[in-house]
Amino acid sequence: MDIKTLANRGVLGLHPYQPGKPVEELERELGIQDIVKLASNENPLGLSPLAKTAIEAATAELTRYPDANGFYLKQKLAERWQVTAEQVTLGNGSNEVLEILFRTFVSPDSEVIFDKHAFIVYALLTQSVGATAVPVASKAWGHDLEGMLARVNDKTRLICIANPNNPTGTYLQPEAIEAFLAKVPSNVLVVLDEAYYEYVKPEQRGETHQWLNRYPNLIISRTFSKAYGLAGLRVGYALTSADIADLLNRVREPFNCNSLALAAATAVLDDTQYLEAGIALNQKEMARLESYFKERALPYIPSVGNFITVEVGDANAIYQALLHQGVIVRPIAGYGMPNHLRVSIGTEAENTRFMAAMDVVLAQR
Amino acid sequence: MDIKTLANRGVLGLHPYQPGKPVEELERELGIQDIVKLASNENPLGLSPLAKTAIEAATAELTRYPDANGFYLKQKLAERWQVTAEQVTLGNGSNEVLEILFRTFVSPDSEVIFDKHAFIVYALLTQSVGATAVPVASKAWGHDLEGMLARVNDKTRLICIANPNNPTGTYLQPEAIEAFLAKVPSNVLVVLDEAYYEYVKPEQRGETHQWLNRYPNLIISRTFSKAYGLAGLRVGYALTSADIADLLNRVREPFNCNSLALAAATAVLDDTQYLEAGIALNQKEMARLESYFKERALPYIPSVGNFITVEVGDANAIYQALLHQGVIVRPIAGYGMPNHLRVSIGTEAENTRFMAAMDVVLAQR
Repeated sequence: MDIKTLANRGVLGLHPYQPGKPVEELERELGIQDIVKLASNENPLGLSPLAKTAIEAATAELTRYPDANGFYLKQKLAERWQVTAEQVTLGNGSNEVLEILFRTFVSPDSEVIFDKHAFIVYALLTQSVGATAVPVASKAWGHDLEGMLARVNDKTRLICIANPNNPTGTYLQPEAIEAFLAKVPSNVLVVLDEAYYEYVKPEQRGETHQWLNRYPNLIISRTFSKAYGLAGLRVGYALTSADIADLLNRVREPFNCNSLALAAATAVLDDTQYLEAGIALNQKEMARLESYFKERALPYIPSVGNFITVEVGDANAIYQALLHQGVIVRPIAGYGMPNHLRVSIGTEAENTRFMAAMDVVLAQR
Repeated sequence: MDIKTLANRGVLGLHPYQPGKPVEELERELGIQDIVKLASNENPLGLSPLAKTAIEAATAELTRYPDANGFYLKQKLAERWQVTAEQVTLGNGSNEVLEILFRTFVSPDSEVIFDKHAFIVYALLTQSVGATAVPVASKAWGHDLEGMLARVNDKTRLICIANPNNPTGTYLQPEAIEAFLAKVPSNVLVVLDEAYYEYVKPEQRGETHQWLNRYPNLIISRTFSKAYGLAGLRVGYALTSADIADLLNRVREPFNCNSLALAAATAVLDDTQYLEAGIALNQKEMARLESYFKERALPYIPSVGNFITVEVGDANAIYQALLHQGVIVRPIAGYGMPNHLRVSIGTEAENTRFMAAMDVVLAQR
C-alpha cells in the first residue's frame, strides 16, 4: 500500500513554500558568524518595546488556552479601521488568513486568478485545494488589471491582488483598484493582500477598508509581520463584510493565534513611534540602495515596499556567492524571475554590509 | 448576491468549536472576581520555569520569521520517541495537526469513523472538508473498537481514536489498540490522538510510537497543551511514517508554530520535574474528587486524564449556577451528554473551591 495514493487531489503536486534561509541554518552549514539576513522583508528595528512589555505580562497565563475569539485585538482593529469587530477575522499570520479564505470558498471546480509574479502562496493554496490556477502575465512587473478581468468566467471564484506586490514591490493606485472592483461580478471574490500597506506613503495609501460596504465581495488582508515587526509571532487579519467573516470564522480553528501573539499585536497597535521610525528608516535606506544599484548599473524595479528587487544576471550564482560573504538575500526563480534577487531593506549597517558584499561578488564575475 | 451561496460544501453546516468560557469573559459578564476555571483541562501548576526562560531568550528575535521547519524541536522529539526528525510534523496545537491530516487525506467522498462521545473536533473537521461522518456508539462511555471495525467500508479513509478519550476519560489498553490496528485495512488511516498521554500511569502507557514501523497507516498525535502546560502557545505534533509526514508537511503552512512556541516547547521537554509534579498533583486531586462524588452519590466516569466527567442531572442548570459561584466547568451537551459536566483537575485550592460551590448549588435544587 503506497500511502501517497491516498492523498487528496493537488497534494502530491505541492512543493512546500521555500522561506528565506534562516541565519542559524547558514551558521550551521558554513560555520560563519556575523550574518546579515535581508531575505524575508522583516522589520530591522527589533521588537517594539510595547510589544515586549505585553509579552512579559502575558507569559504568566500561558498554561491557559488563548482567547479563541481574540476579543481585545479585534476590538482594537475595529476601532482603528472603523469597522465592527464582527468584520475582523484573525489568522496565524496573513498566510493563514489566505488559507482559511481558500478553504471556505475555493473548491476543485473553481478557478483562481492571480498575477504571474505575485506572492507564491496564492498558487500553493490553489493547488492544495485542487482548484485551477489562472496566472495572468504582468505589465511592467505589476498587475495587469484589465488582463485579469478578461480571464473572469463562470468558474472564477477568487481574484488575488497583492498591493504592494511581493516580490516586485509594484503598486496599484487605489483609484485603479476601485475601478476594477466596480467591474468584477459580485459573485467573484477579490482578496486585496495588503501585507506591505504601512510602507506606502500616506498620500498614496488607499482607505480600502472604507470600500467594504460598497463591495461585499472584497476581502482585505493585512499583517503584523512587516511594519509592526511581529513576524516571529504570526498575526494577520482579514477585514470583510460580517457575512464573509462569519463564514471564515466557522472554518478557522479555535486558538489559531496564540496568547503572546494576541497580546503583542494588541499592544503594538499603539506604538506609533515604532511604526513611524521603521517607515522613515525604510525610505532613507531604500534611497541608498537605489543609488547603489544605479551606480553599479544594475536594473531594479522601483518598490513601495520594504524590499527592492534587482536584476543581476545569474541570480542563483550571485545568491550563493553572497551567502559566502555572510549575506542572505532572496532568490526568486520560483516566481519566474531567475535573473532577479529580492533584497529586504535593513538597518544602515546591514545595507552597508550588503553593498560591500555585493561589490566583492560582482568583482569575482 | 448572497455570499453564503459561494461557500464550499460543509461550511454552512459548521458551528465553530465552543471553547471553555474564559475567566475574563465571566468577569466581564457577571462582574465577579476570584474565578476558578476548571473547564479546559489545562495544567494548574503554572508555566514551567524552563519554558519561561526560553521565552525570555527568544523574545529578542521576534521581528524574524520563525524557523519554518522547527529544526530543534523536531530533533528533540525525534530523540525522545526514537523516531527520525523526518517522521515529525509540528502543528499549531494538535488541533492543527488533525486539521492538516484531514486536508491531506479526507475528501468529500470519504467516510470518517469516530466514537460518538469522542473529541468534537473530529466531527467538525469531517464537516469542514465535506466528508461523511460515521459516529459509532460507545461501550461504557469508551470506544467500541469492534463496532468501529464493523463500519469500515470502501469509502473509509480515516478512523479517529482518542486515547485517553476526551470528554469521558476512558482508556483503551495498548494491546487492544494494537489488535485493532492489525485488523484495519492498510488503506485506512488510523489517528491515535494521545493528547492526554502523559497522564496515563507509566505501567499502562503504550509505547505506541514504536508501532509506526509495523503500521504505516498509523498517525500518533500529541500535544504540549496539557501535561506540558503550554496551552496558550499552541504546539502539537504528529509522529508518523516519513511518507505521511512528507505529505502533511506539503499541506502545512510554513511558520505555523511561532518562535516563542517553538522555544518553549523545546525547553519544556527537559523539565521532567515539572511534568512529574503535575502528574502527581493530578493523581492526588483526582482521588479527592472521586471521593467527593461518591459521598454526594454523583455517578462519575473513572478517568485516566486530567479531568473527570460526572453525571449531575440537568447539567446546564448546574453549570450556570456554578458560574454564579465563580466556578467555570465544562458542559458537554454538544458531545451528546446533556446530563454530564466535565471538571478539570485543578490545584488543591481550586478543587476545594469547586466542591464548596457544588455543595451550594446542590443545596439549591
